Amino acid sequence: MSNPVLVEVTRGNLVESRHRGTVIAVDGDGNTVFSLGDTDAAVFPRSACKAVQALPLVESGAADAYGFGAKALALACASHSGEPEHVALAAEMLAAAGCDVDALECGAHWSFDQKTLIGQARSIEAPSALHNNCSGKHAGFVCACCHWGTEVRGYVGYDHPIQQEIRGVMETLTGAILAHDNCGVDGCSIPTYAVPLKGLAHGFARMATGTGLAAERARASRRLIEACMAEPFYVAGTKRACTRMMKTAPGRIFAKTGAEGVFCAAIPDKGIAIALKCEDGTTRAAEAMVTATLARFFADEPEIHTALMAQANHSMRNWNGIHVGDVRVTEAFSA
Amino acid sequence: MSNPVLVEVTRGNLVESRHRGTVIAVDGDGNTVFSLGDTDAAVFPRSACKAVQALPLVESGAADAYGFGAKALALACASHSGEPEHVALAAEMLAAAGCDVDALECGAHWSFDQKTLIGQARSIEAPSALHNNCSGKHAGFVCACCHWGTEVRGYVGYDHPIQQEIRGVMETLTGAILAHDNCGVDGCSIPTYAVPLKGLAHGFARMATGTGLAAERARASRRLIEACMAEPFYVAGTKRACTRMMKTAPGRIFAKTGAEGVFCAAIPDKGIAIALKCEDGTTRAAEAMVTATLARFFADEPEIHTALMAQANHSMRNWNGIHVGDVRVTEAFSA
Repeated sequence: MSNPVLVEVTRGNLVESRHRGTVIAVDGDGNTVFSLGDTDAAVFPRSACKAVQALPLVESGAADAYGFGAKALALACASHSGEPEHVALAAEMLAAAGCDVDALECGAHWSFDQKTLIGQARSIEAPSALHNNCSGKHAGFVCACCHWGTEVRGYVGYDHPIQQEIRGVMETLTGAILAHDNCGVDGCSIPTYAVPLKGLAHGFARMATGTGLAAERARASRRLIEACMAEPFYVAGTKRACTRMMKTAPGRIFAKTGAEGVFCAAIPDKGIAIALKCEDGTTRAAEAMVTATLARFFADEPEIHTALMAQANHSMRNWNGIHVGDVRVTEAFSA
Repeated sequence: MSNPVLVEVTRGNLVESRHRGTVIAVDGDGNTVFSLGDTDAAVFPRSACKAVQALPLVESGAADAYGFGAKALALACASHSGEPEHVALAAEMLAAAGCDVDALECGAHWSFDQKTLIGQARSIEAPSALHNNCSGKHAGFVCACCHWGTEVRGYVGYDHPIQQEIRGVMETLTGAILAHDNCGVDGCSIPTYAVPLKGLAHGFARMATGTGLAAERARASRRLIEACMAEPFYVAGTKRACTRMMKTAPGRIFAKTGAEGVFCAAIPDKGIAIALKCEDGTTRAAEAMVTATLARFFADEPEIHTALMAQANHSMRNWNGIHVGDVRVTEAFSA
């Protein structure tokens, strides 16, 4: 079965490019409330599941021991742009545990955001691991290990206690069995596990609603999701899609992107969560899909619905500011 | 009909993302020698047809009048990276016609190449139109207009003589009828026309072989294609795919990328040309498709075949240099 075309990119009067994908929205019991395409297929959630990976930081007591507020918890769930505030906060998190940049095993890269990259090029010789978009997540791993009294070194390894813990959390939340055969290595070197899209959505619905979770996990989940919704700049950055979506309905929308066209999102007060994958891995399409799916659940709140659909369907301008085409979701979303 | 999956991106043991597309290779008479997917569908060639758009520069006599060698002709066909050599040559081309950067109507943007962008950020306040990846093409337009004695201003417009001339050339080469209904505006503000993929390939096969072309056009076509093959750095830049492909078999492969996953290529000594479009517009997949297609025609030259297939199928490494997955063409190319 081919997955349906969910996003079209137009130029002039014609469709220039097409993006296929799979989308699912479920409630806290795992009931499907909306779906498109083959949602049983396994996808690597990549960075879209960073909030899951941040649970040990909270559940271990490390976040409290080190006095982390919403900004630090949001950064632990972030794919940030490496803006100065992100870099400084990652360093502060490490310092709280008596560590520094040398503890990070995520590797270094320049910012993906052009404006931030230009600022970096003009102010530093080369980026450090603190500038890596995953530095907050990795700082969270380091802090959890320090608080446990576990050896930090090698924390990105499949058999390290923090990765074993995360694997168990992922299994509980998604219902998937995770092992080497569905494991890959992520951009920042930690394990990433392919799970059925439906299970991924159910995991986030459990986190957003607490349904079926032990009290401690429900509290930690809610705390992380609320931290992201409260500090959306620290989850992504200036002009980034995740940040913009969460600002559209403050305190009500959680949204997190992952590489290769994945998105996880939740609307806690409506008790639903969303997971999706653009088949070809393109971010512009995944962003359109998630905003159009979120909008479905705000049909009775026109201001939010309109704002989300304006993010799903938007015009493209060229270097001279001329309107050349549009990104738009297809009729599949009208079903 | 769905177009077939032509490229897969793996992670661990699993396929993470999939790219569909259409590919066609034709000879100078327009006979199909290889095809995948719906090759009658119209695609915007975008920058992949810059060599076509450069024909007036040569046919008008401007290239000779201004003393342009292979480097300038290659730059007129280029989507360059804005490296210092590209920028300087675009300025020289304009100066030869008594113009400067102010004549360019392409708009300005920072380099798409990270290393070049970092160099630009450290040496200039902001990019000019000379840094635009299309500045060589636009300098060619300006030079053709100056040599004709035509008003330069407004040269990006649909009704300007240079765009009328290009429209006629495109119609002759591709066999398509072009007008407002299949016209869009390109990133650099000139018209771009959607043409059936097969016609696009035939246009490049005509350019590469001269078959069916008037003697002057055949000469101009051959001169542009040979200039690109002789100076591949000026068609793209350091570490760019077009440059690398053309260096793989010097003087024998012409290859030019276009935005939204298009590629046009030719092997003049084998009398064939290739056009392709990745359905979702992704460059990584279009690059794999074109190198795998080119490789088919070098089956009896193992060194070139191997080098091209190594560009089609290649590993991906993360920030720590760890092998995380591969980009690979599918069995569709084995047919």
